[in-house]
Amino acid sequence: MASFPFEIAAVDGQARTGTLKTSRGDIRTPAFMPVGTAATVKALYPDQVRQAGADILLGNTYHLMLRPGAERVKRLGGLHHFMRWDGPILTDSGGFQVWSLAGLRKMSEEGVAFKSHIDGSKHMLTPERSIEIQADLLGADISMQLDECTPFPCERDAAAKSMELSIRWGRRSKEAFGNRETQNLFGIVQGSVYPDLRQQSAEALIETDFDGYAVGGLAVGEGFEMMCNVLDVTTPHLPHERPRYLMGVGRPIDLVEAVARGIDMFDCVMPTRSGRHGQAWSDHGPFNLKNAQYAEDESPLNEAVNCPASRDYSKAYIHHLVRAGEYLGSMILSWHNVAYYEDLMARMRAAISEGRFDAFRAEFLARWEEGTGKRA
Amino acid sequence: MASFPFEIAAVDGQARTGTLKTSRGDIRTPAFMPVGTAATVKALYPDQVRQAGADILLGNTYHLMLRPGAERVKRLGGLHHFMRWDGPILTDSGGFQVWSLAGLRKMSEEGVAFKSHIDGSKHMLTPERSIEIQADLLGADISMQLDECTPFPCERDAAAKSMELSIRWGRRSKEAFGNRETQNLFGIVQGSVYPDLRQQSAEALIETDFDGYAVGGLAVGEGFEMMCNVLDVTTPHLPHERPRYLMGVGRPIDLVEAVARGIDMFDCVMPTRSGRHGQAWSDHGPFNLKNAQYAEDESPLNEAVNCPASRDYSKAYIHHLVRAGEYLGSMILSWHNVAYYEDLMARMRAAISEGRFDAFRAEFLARWEEGTGKRA
Repeated sequence: MASFPFEIAAVDGQARTGTLKTSRGDIRTPAFMPVGTAATVKALYPDQVRQAGADILLGNTYHLMLRPGAERVKRLGGLHHFMRWDGPILTDSGGFQVWSLAGLRKMSEEGVAFKSHIDGSKHMLTPERSIEIQADLLGADISMQLDECTPFPCERDAAAKSMELSIRWGRRSKEAFGNRETQNLFGIVQGSVYPDLRQQSAEALIETDFDGYAVGGLAVGEGFEMMCNVLDVTTPHLPHERPRYLMGVGRPIDLVEAVARGIDMFDCVMPTRSGRHGQAWSDHGPFNLKNAQYAEDESPLNEAVNCPASRDYSKAYIHHLVRAGEYLGSMILSWHNVAYYEDLMARMRAAISEGRFDAFRAEFLARWEEGTGKRA
Repeated sequence: MASFPFEIAAVDGQARTGTLKTSRGDIRTPAFMPVGTAATVKALYPDQVRQAGADILLGNTYHLMLRPGAERVKRLGGLHHFMRWDGPILTDSGGFQVWSLAGLRKMSEEGVAFKSHIDGSKHMLTPERSIEIQADLLGADISMQLDECTPFPCERDAAAKSMELSIRWGRRSKEAFGNRETQNLFGIVQGSVYPDLRQQSAEALIETDFDGYAVGGLAVGEGFEMMCNVLDVTTPHLPHERPRYLMGVGRPIDLVEAVARGIDMFDCVMPTRSGRHGQAWSDHGPFNLKNAQYAEDESPLNEAVNCPASRDYSKAYIHHLVRAGEYLGSMILSWHNVAYYEDLMARMRAAISEGRFDAFRAEFLARWEEGTGKRA
């Protein structure tokens, strides 16, 4: 095969639902990918990730190339075998994490030279090396092109130059990737907040011909409204028949609004990170189990979510665990949050299938506003 | 019922195997009780504790009375319901933890006044209050009398005075406990390393008439040989027909040698604590997964132990998780260690049943010496 078959079962407005059929299993879209940075979705067993409803994980090239090392993962049978996850895995290119290493990195046309945050060792990430790590060594089902994440805010000229570099890196990534039987490669649209740059980026990527298209350069501080605006001017330029992936986003409301704008795939550390900080997510927004109001609250986190972490433990017990700094508090909250995110995706898929996504979205926004006191 | 029925199915030398039948389920003896200090066996889900083979847990009165508070646990339905463990629970009296608070406690005939290590608040633990917390508020299936843990080393006169105080506190504990349908109370033998004091303590407790008898004042730095010596002069004075519990012990080899001396029950934080520090236990002693030698070791921790944590993950993967400071490393190692301890108990029970405990013990000691380079 070239591109994984992507069967769009229903379209409702801009929103779509379908199945991306990889050789390691089907991905039901819109899909949320829990983040397994260091070859583990933090504080969850792999079985629990699956049980929570995830079809696909994300792995971080930057972290894995430094520890345990991509060659070592290869010798140990590849990332799937290493971490005992037999479903599909998408890896990022490492570009975003390296870009975040302000002061420790040096960009050039060739790629990014950087120092490890773990031991200070020197490394070079090029489009070719990133593909080698992702596709050959880790064995990702979906690899991402190396790109430069444009900062926010960014002047138009700088945004254009950055976006053009990402286009050239995209071509080199594609060249290095070649044709593979059971692996795919996605390109990444950049262009900051400038509609014409986003369009130019999308058109150039389509010419390079990727298996799927990501929207990059968001979730970097631009805010909710700007994110929606960028999606409004970007997704219309992406091919209908290929999956669209919004990188690093976000809160539940962000997911709902991005699905409304035609996005099919997401990843975010939020459910696991906030779980480790005592926070649980819901349609009414986040709530912190540390708060005294939960000390004797016998209700579960959310009995509508089909997950032991959501259903079986009282808020009072989780409050106690969080206050006492117990592992189990982080474990239960992380598992619940992943399950809640996956449940939200399932509800969106059902709403799109049944042609009632607008109603679902309106009801969700009402609950969100009721719970948070804010529209978004 | 008064005392829980204790059916001794087989005796082999001093070692015994049987079943202690509580109203919340059977405890197969010799039994190892994982420690659930703060209403959680650290880094394990309750289902995993059960799946590891544990029939009974230990809860710590001291920790629970301070956080979340014993009255609060009562309002929330008792400790079993609060932490979702429907099997039996034994609670300690709080005496040992309070005794460990050097400088923050004051002993008197009445009890122990102390300050919380969490918030400095003042508390008083008496035999009566300890029973109220354990039996009435937490709802323990087996409560322990309040005792004074005699330090090691200790002069004979001081050890005698301390042991006598524990006898008086034992009587007051029994008086406060009264007769209960579905709950039991154990006494605690003290007397330091002095055989006649241990005998005197045992005889006085038997006169008070407890449902089971614990050996206290060990696991306080006296060492392996001294522990064995104290057991040699203590268990012969305990009634054959009641369970015997060695408190706070220990390493696998300690359990084997204590079973050889007629002990039926154990608790220890070792499997979970060392799991959080990268350590796995085996018949060959402990080994630390942080060590570079495991970086590419694809074998599991122990495929003979019927637990996913023991069988399903490579040492190389766990090595990586421990090095990266990931939750899952502590989770897998803690679960494996509890399962290994429970598996060791099951192997001892089978050996006693089949009249081959001496051979089992000799083989175990040989493996231990081979692995550790030491006899014990």
